[in-house]
Amino acid sequence: MRMTAAVWHGPKDVRITELDVRPPGPGEVTIAVAYCGICGSDLHEYVDGPHAVPVGTPHPASGVTAPLVLGHEFCGTISAVGPDVSGLAIGDRIAVEPHYRCGTCPRCAAGEYNICRHFGFAGLTGHGGLAEYCTLPAYMAHRLPPEVSLEQAALFEPAAVALHALRRSGAGPADTVAVIGLGPIGLLTVLLAGRLGIRRIIAAEVVAERLRLAGRLGATDLVDAGSGEDAAERVRALTGGQGADVAVEAVGAAHTLRTCLAATRRGGRVVLVGLTGDITLSAFELVNNEQSIITSVGYRNCHPELIRLVAEDGLDLTPIATGTIPLDQVVPRGFEALLGGTSQIKVLVRPNPGPR
Amino acid sequence: MRMTAAVWHGPKDVRITELDVRPPGPGEVTIAVAYCGICGSDLHEYVDGPHAVPVGTPHPASGVTAPLVLGHEFCGTISAVGPDVSGLAIGDRIAVEPHYRCGTCPRCAAGEYNICRHFGFAGLTGHGGLAEYCTLPAYMAHRLPPEVSLEQAALFEPAAVALHALRRSGAGPADTVAVIGLGPIGLLTVLLAGRLGIRRIIAAEVVAERLRLAGRLGATDLVDAGSGEDAAERVRALTGGQGADVAVEAVGAAHTLRTCLAATRRGGRVVLVGLTGDITLSAFELVNNEQSIITSVGYRNCHPELIRLVAEDGLDLTPIATGTIPLDQVVPRGFEALLGGTSQIKVLVRPNPGPR
Repeated sequence: MRMTAAVWHGPKDVRITELDVRPPGPGEVTIAVAYCGICGSDLHEYVDGPHAVPVGTPHPASGVTAPLVLGHEFCGTISAVGPDVSGLAIGDRIAVEPHYRCGTCPRCAAGEYNICRHFGFAGLTGHGGLAEYCTLPAYMAHRLPPEVSLEQAALFEPAAVALHALRRSGAGPADTVAVIGLGPIGLLTVLLAGRLGIRRIIAAEVVAERLRLAGRLGATDLVDAGSGEDAAERVRALTGGQGADVAVEAVGAAHTLRTCLAATRRGGRVVLVGLTGDITLSAFELVNNEQSIITSVGYRNCHPELIRLVAEDGLDLTPIATGTIPLDQVVPRGFEALLGGTSQIKVLVRPNPGPR
Repeated sequence: MRMTAAVWHGPKDVRITELDVRPPGPGEVTIAVAYCGICGSDLHEYVDGPHAVPVGTPHPASGVTAPLVLGHEFCGTISAVGPDVSGLAIGDRIAVEPHYRCGTCPRCAAGEYNICRHFGFAGLTGHGGLAEYCTLPAYMAHRLPPEVSLEQAALFEPAAVALHALRRSGAGPADTVAVIGLGPIGLLTVLLAGRLGIRRIIAAEVVAERLRLAGRLGATDLVDAGSGEDAAERVRALTGGQGADVAVEAVGAAHTLRTCLAATRRGGRVVLVGLTGDITLSAFELVNNEQSIITSVGYRNCHPELIRLVAEDGLDLTPIATGTIPLDQVVPRGFEALLGGTSQIKVLVRPNPGPR
């Protein structure tokens, strides 16, 4: 069987290509992709990759090297089931949790498969979901109950990033959480912080439309970081001069990390979920303020909770999806549109149009 | 009443001076100091201070400005009790917990008085224990049971730093803890890690004698960081290539922080207890390895546990005390001796010689 896929060949070289659909091997399933979101990591690979994409040497978990099918935020319907797969059948609607896991390293054994020795993602270090079909390990598939639409499941991957970051922060209902940067991860962090019962959620961002959306998603205080006012000072003013208990850095820049530290109280935690390069910090200030820097990468054991929140608790992730495009438009209306402005938040690609 | 004290006037200008003993005001006690240890922070003030010592503007908690009586690691016997003090009497032997606390700020209200808005220590931001007498807030005094000698209590302050750092690390018995740097804090961290039930304790240091002492204090693995071998690689080799669960940075230098990160597993924690200046880190690596940097400053609620460990559990802190000197020798045989070599670990000053 043949399929259309968006294939990364190099920076600024993503091609819409016809490929064979790989039949599922033992422990694998093939899904017909319903939706695949475009992530900032995909943009990084598109603009000036490779960053995670294996070139030359195959990735140890996937055995794949570029050219590589991008896309790791995806869901769909099972179209084929390989040998030695139980609990999944053709026609099952599933969300994909794209972390590879070796299953045997100490971190996998401890359930921390997001930091498996073979750290990687389908769609970045193996073939992904910007395609009509994707064949992947069955352990990546979470079957959806009837109450959960594929449009919601399309957003589980970034929602899991936000949920894991909040879990890593240790934030509880009595804490004040400041979210610095309102891209998809920041907005989903605001939304899920509310679901975790956190009563004070301060959102800071330069783009007014995103700030308004954060308010609709549950932020209790909005800080316009583009107003010329110092965002950290504003957070401190909103917290009686103390600073937030937790600040989530959802931009991935050295200057926003400094904003986070300045916006966080003595003894508080800054959670790094964005990726950036080198950062320079004053260890003297960090220690004297007893502030900690917690990092969060990917997610683990988040998808079952997201399924439950949508199915039973009315969680709606779809306000962050600002556009749906066909697969052959992924470069002009996907990557280039996201690079060209801030009007889009999350663009969903729909390789197989059909009933939701 | 008059007393002799070691008074900081400026860098390299600590004078042995006759001063009045200040009578205790409301909520205060005066103690006759039995022992006062010399800390790295004292050396910093001696060499190129002021760092914490208030000059010009009085410290908000103590009301004191330099010239200032140094020394925050002290214990002694109560010689006078001011009004409005309960539970303490003349003749009580006490350990001093020298953190000031305002009692009303959010951190004090949460029991986290070590990060009180008026962050400070008797002996650094107020008058301390390198003197025959010290008048201080009664809340700093922990009464010692008969089983606890003043010589043990003299070491409670650095031991509390180590205990707090271990608590902040979240390390449990199943974790491997690497302690990088074996000054007094590193050695006490090794000793107390064993008391917390941590079964694998890797100690790394360049000075062979300190490494041997760490072995006697409970380190299960010794890494000679002066051998030319990479200390982080050695820690990784000792942990099946994974790295330690927790690394404690007890040197206060940028290069040992990098050693700690390289010696720590994915998802592990590096605890900064040493103080240093600016540090540059790769946020990309930090996030992708899901490593966190936890800081620890001072201590809170540690002294009761230390009293219990010594009184009931046979904890002996005294192996780290390598010398006892009279007060008038604090500069040549204290500060200068500690700066001049590594043969001394903890020097105790004995302002009031008498029965232990």
